[in-house]
Amino acid sequence: MSEIRQDPTTKEWVIIAPERAKRPQHMPKRMLAHELPSWEESCPFCPGNESQTPDEVLRFPPSAQGSAWEVRVVPNRFAALSLSGNLTRREEGHLFRKMDGVGVNEVIIETPSHNTPIALMTREQVEKVLVAYQQRYNTLKENRQLKFITIFKNHGWASGTSLIHPHSQLVATPLATTYYRRKFDVAVDYYDNVGRCLYCDLIAEELRRGERIIAETKEFIVLHPFASRVPYETWIIPKRHCASFGLCPATGLTELSTVLRDTLLCLHRGLDNPAFNYMFDTSTTEDEEDPYYHWHIRIVPRLTTIAGFEMGSGIYINTALPEDTAKVIKKMLNSLKKGAPYPDQHALSDTMATGA
Amino acid sequence: MSEIRQDPTTKEWVIIAPERAKRPQHMPKRMLAHELPSWEESCPFCPGNESQTPDEVLRFPPSAQGSAWEVRVVPNRFAALSLSGNLTRREEGHLFRKMDGVGVNEVIIETPSHNTPIALMTREQVEKVLVAYQQRYNTLKENRQLKFITIFKNHGWASGTSLIHPHSQLVATPLATTYYRRKFDVAVDYYDNVGRCLYCDLIAEELRRGERIIAETKEFIVLHPFASRVPYETWIIPKRHCASFGLCPATGLTELSTVLRDTLLCLHRGLDNPAFNYMFDTSTTEDEEDPYYHWHIRIVPRLTTIAGFEMGSGIYINTALPEDTAKVIKKMLNSLKKGAPYPDQHALSDTMATGA
Repeated sequence: MSEIRQDPTTKEWVIIAPERAKRPQHMPKRMLAHELPSWEESCPFCPGNESQTPDEVLRFPPSAQGSAWEVRVVPNRFAALSLSGNLTRREEGHLFRKMDGVGVNEVIIETPSHNTPIALMTREQVEKVLVAYQQRYNTLKENRQLKFITIFKNHGWASGTSLIHPHSQLVATPLATTYYRRKFDVAVDYYDNVGRCLYCDLIAEELRRGERIIAETKEFIVLHPFASRVPYETWIIPKRHCASFGLCPATGLTELSTVLRDTLLCLHRGLDNPAFNYMFDTSTTEDEEDPYYHWHIRIVPRLTTIAGFEMGSGIYINTALPEDTAKVIKKMLNSLKKGAPYPDQHALSDTMATGA
Repeated sequence: MSEIRQDPTTKEWVIIAPERAKRPQHMPKRMLAHELPSWEESCPFCPGNESQTPDEVLRFPPSAQGSAWEVRVVPNRFAALSLSGNLTRREEGHLFRKMDGVGVNEVIIETPSHNTPIALMTREQVEKVLVAYQQRYNTLKENRQLKFITIFKNHGWASGTSLIHPHSQLVATPLATTYYRRKFDVAVDYYDNVGRCLYCDLIAEELRRGERIIAETKEFIVLHPFASRVPYETWIIPKRHCASFGLCPATGLTELSTVLRDTLLCLHRGLDNPAFNYMFDTSTTEDEEDPYYHWHIRIVPRLTTIAGFEMGSGIYINTALPEDTAKVIKKMLNSLKKGAPYPDQHALSDTMATGA
């Protein structure tokens, strides 16, 4: 049984899970998608190797037999959390607070194809991935022990992934995460002062300015945020107020499949298949209807390494202006829409980072 | 001129410094100290290449001529901040707040020897480095524009360093960092509730329990914190209450030189010269005399990569219990004191991380 512990000096929580030290690392020499095979015998996520993962909790299409699946969701074999255990906080003295590592950690295997990341998928396949995310989200939130559900992707070795086959993960924790709580507090404070949702106002202001907007569709905007922490950091925000990804309507997911795929395709081509993480920032399962928070996706390319200054200060040093990077990506996206050839990828190098 | 920007959703600050994109990267294939030469012709920090850095702001011994120095402090040639500029916050609309990138970024070149990290230095040399840190700290704090001074080290490529020659850095910012402010707020809250310094209480409690303590000297304790974020995270805390590293007495620095060197030597031998960062967590320059905060050093080995879950949640997944890692390092430290041979380095592997 792992533990979740609270640092008495920061109030931040840490999952202590010694079991995870045993999980394997698959580390081929290269990560370029076009150099990978479409099927890899030793990959536990490739068709034919279904027995190497725990039993599925979701399969698309549901009736698919054997290896004829399109998307699978399985428990993480090396999960840091499990549903057995006790949520009662225990205190050792008055400083050290802890609880059992209760929670869920699942893997979304996004495609049978070993070498087709979201950037290169059909729109329909991306939509299936998003529907799988949301179905698992909405199923898990029924368990009232689970207060917060983080959906995220690690793509490329520098992102912290240990397997290259396209997949993402879902972690459900029995407490609101510190990152969310901080953002929530800021949003509540804004709402109390101004009387409106911070993110709704942000969208309106960014649209008015235009200089950091990559794309606007009926339901979403894509932008490089004002205070981007790293070059090419990208946010995708639904235009309509909604605190939770779990409540995004089906039409929204359909539209999002294009928006997400095209955004990642620009990064893939423009930065030569960079390592990146994306995270779905959403409300707690108990705050889904609230007027303060507003779900969104953060995409963070891993072109630089988080170093001592960032760790010591919480302040990131970004080597690119978001207004500049937005211009580059916007141009690529417009070419993409017109079916025109992409600008030379080296056009991006002037605004690229080389380390913090 | 770079900019410092505040993210309206997190209130966190980011330095936007496009100029830094131009700095060079020296990336040899290996990082093991014993495989490096003691002098490297192309290294800007090696003796004889002094002209490749900006003019020194400090040199030990002060009278040393030419290349006969022991420690040098120079402005970072690719500094993200500079002392020209305006501290006035500017607002674009009511959401986007920014100010000029005012501040100082210096490099402490810790030794003329290209291949002698702190772990392998003489105690006397480490003391010179610590004295240089403190002299620069206390000189810079006289500038009332500078509110916070972060001293940190990036060791090894995975730590985010771009040069292998032993060095550390100092960044002075015109505002308290978000990381500090969060810790400060927690400490003030504790003080208001309990009437004592949080860290003084933490030291007493850890000493009483003993299970996470690596070493105790007259002036310092070394421990693996209760909620360690990564395996072998190590804190060095002065036992006497003191908010600021700038006020640490000379006798404290003398003792710290042994404590810091031996702690890093254990990591160096036990984890085969791992990449790591260390950070001096200290008060703002305006809070140096306060009863709430208590300066300390955090050493964070970079055995794992920060991935999507950590970025999305603020929650780290640690694969080792600090009580276990503390036991391993304590044993090594005791062997070191007795001059006995070190336990086989593979003894550490059971508790080592393999990624989050």
